[in-house]
Amino acid sequence: MKRIRIGILGYGNLGRGVELAIGQHDDMELAGIFTRRDPSTVAAHTKDVPVRPASELDQGADDIDVLILCGGSATDLPEQTPRYAARYTVVDSFDTHANIPEHFAIVNKAAQDAGTIAVISCGWDPGMFSLNRLYGTCVLPEGTDYTFWGRGVSQGHSDAIRRIEGVADAKQYTIPVEAALEAVRSGSNPELTTRQKHLRECWVVLDEGADADAVEEQIITMPNYFADYDTTVHFISQEELDRDHAAMPHGGFVLRSGETGDGNPALIEYSLKLGSNPGFTGNVLVAFARAAHRLAQEGQAGARTVFDIAPAYLSPYGGEYLREHLL
Amino acid sequence: MKRIRIGILGYGNLGRGVELAIGQHDDMELAGIFTRRDPSTVAAHTKDVPVRPASELDQGADDIDVLILCGGSATDLPEQTPRYAARYTVVDSFDTHANIPEHFAIVNKAAQDAGTIAVISCGWDPGMFSLNRLYGTCVLPEGTDYTFWGRGVSQGHSDAIRRIEGVADAKQYTIPVEAALEAVRSGSNPELTTRQKHLRECWVVLDEGADADAVEEQIITMPNYFADYDTTVHFISQEELDRDHAAMPHGGFVLRSGETGDGNPALIEYSLKLGSNPGFTGNVLVAFARAAHRLAQEGQAGARTVFDIAPAYLSPYGGEYLREHLL
Repeated sequence: MKRIRIGILGYGNLGRGVELAIGQHDDMELAGIFTRRDPSTVAAHTKDVPVRPASELDQGADDIDVLILCGGSATDLPEQTPRYAARYTVVDSFDTHANIPEHFAIVNKAAQDAGTIAVISCGWDPGMFSLNRLYGTCVLPEGTDYTFWGRGVSQGHSDAIRRIEGVADAKQYTIPVEAALEAVRSGSNPELTTRQKHLRECWVVLDEGADADAVEEQIITMPNYFADYDTTVHFISQEELDRDHAAMPHGGFVLRSGETGDGNPALIEYSLKLGSNPGFTGNVLVAFARAAHRLAQEGQAGARTVFDIAPAYLSPYGGEYLREHLL
Repeated sequence: MKRIRIGILGYGNLGRGVELAIGQHDDMELAGIFTRRDPSTVAAHTKDVPVRPASELDQGADDIDVLILCGGSATDLPEQTPRYAARYTVVDSFDTHANIPEHFAIVNKAAQDAGTIAVISCGWDPGMFSLNRLYGTCVLPEGTDYTFWGRGVSQGHSDAIRRIEGVADAKQYTIPVEAALEAVRSGSNPELTTRQKHLRECWVVLDEGADADAVEEQIITMPNYFADYDTTVHFISQEELDRDHAAMPHGGFVLRSGETGDGNPALIEYSLKLGSNPGFTGNVLVAFARAAHRLAQEGQAGARTVFDIAPAYLSPYGGEYLREHLL
C-alpha cells in the first residue's frame, strides 16, 4: 500500500497534535514539518521526521500528498490556505465562524483554478459539531439547536486577560451551565441568554504589586468577552497556574430538540469530552486529510467543508468492510 | 420550486411515520400511499392523499420521484427493494444487520442495471447510530465503540413473548444499564458482557387460566432473546397494557472512548431519546429521500448507504446557507 504523505505547516500545539495523530494511521506517513522559523531551532516530536523551511513549499514539494495547515485563523490561514491550495491538496481548521463564507469563496477560487482540493474548517467546532448541527436539522426540521462549549480552556479569553495591565499570566475556562443543559434535555426548548448558557472561570497570576481589585473589575466588565457572563476570578501564583492549569481540555454539547412528524418529542445529543483540544483537532484534521486525498485522486477540485464529504471517505476501510462492521 | 414527489409503500407504523414526516418539509409532497391491501379499506392520515394499489407501481407510476419502502426487513424488503429499484429511486430501512452486505449486493445490482439510486438501511440503527460509529472510529482510531439501546420497546422481543402459549399480549422494554454507561463514560474502556449492558423488562397479559410461573420461566430462559439478560416480568391486565404501554419510545447511545494521538483521553457520545421509534425512523428516511433524489438527478446509479452520502445532500438548503448558519 502506498501511504498518504502528509506535510504539516506550522508547529505549535495544533501542528504537534496533527503530527501525533498521523502516528495512529497505518496508511499515512509524515513527510515533513514545515516552519517559518529556522528549522535548526525546531525539534520534531517524531524522530526521523525532517523539519523543513516553509519556503520549500513555494518551490513545490513533490513528496507531499496533503498539506495540513496548522496556523491561526486570524492572520495565517486567510493568507496560507489560498496560497498553498494553488499547489497542494490542503486541509485547514479555519474557525472564525463569521468569516467562513469569505474564506470559502477565496479558497474555492484558488483551488478551482489550480485543480486542487481544499478542505476548510475541519476540527470539532467548526467540524464535528457542525456535522451534528446539520444532521440534526435535517432529520428534525421542526426543532431547536443548542450548542454548549466546555468545560474547557478558551485561548482567546485567556489572551484577553493577559493583555490587561498587571496580569502576568492567565487561563480562562468556559463552563456550560448544568441547569441550562438540563432544561434543553427536558424538551422544553428554552430561550437561553448568553449568561444562562455559560460561566467563565478565570485563573490569574498578577504582576508584582498589581492591584487585584482593579484587574478583576477590568476582567468582569470587559465587553464581548466577559461582561455578558457570570465570571469568577481567582488569583494564584505562577507555580500553581503551571501545575494545575497547563492542560488544554475542552469539549461541549450539540443538542437538537424537536418533534417528529407524528408529534412525538425527539432529542438528539452529541457531546465531546476532550483531554486535549489541539490533540483532538489534530485527529479530526488527519481523518479529513485522507478524504481530501481521495477527492483529489478522483480529479475533483475546489473548496470543501465537512458538509460536502461523504463519511466513508474518512475511513481507511472500504465500503464492504464498513457495511459489515459499522452499519 | 418543483417539489419532490414521494410515494410510500406499506402503511403500518413506519409508513405513517414517513407520511407525517413529509409534512415537515416544504420541498416535498406525498404523491400516494401504496398498499397491498384493498385501498378502499385504508384511510390515509393526511387528507387528499390517494391510497393506491401496490400493483400500480409495476406499471410505472410516473408521478413518483422517490419511493420509500416501509415494509419489514424479514420478508418484505429483501424482495421489494431490488424489485422497485429496477424502476424507481428507492429508500429503505432494512435493519437486519447481519444480512446488510447481501441485501446491499442484490439491491446494488438491480439499481446499477436500471440506472437508479437505492439508499438502504436508513433510520437510526442502522442509520444515525452507524454514522456516529463511523465518524467515531475515523477521528479516534485508537479507541473502543459502545452501542447501547433503550429505554425502548423492542418489537422483536415483544413478538417473541406473544408467541408463548398462555400469553395474550406483551410489550418488552430494552433498558441500558446505567452503571455500564457510566463505566464507559469514565474512560476505563470496560469489556462488558451482554448481561452487563442491558436489562429486559416485560409487561405481559396472560390468557385466562394461564400459568404465570410457567410463562415467566419460558420468557427468562428463552435463548438469544432473554437467557443472557437480567429479565423482569410483570403481569398486568390488557387495559393496563393498552393504557400505559401503547407508545413506541426508543433511543440509545453510541460512545467512542479512546485517546488522541498525543495520548490524551477523548470521549464522544451520541444519544437519541425518541418519543416514537417509527416517527423518528420516518423522519430520517425522508431526509435521505431528498439525498437519494439529488443523487438520481446527478445521474448516479447503484446502492448507497448513509456512509456514502455527503451530509449536505440531506438538507433543503444550499452550501452557502449551510456554511453561514450551521458550520
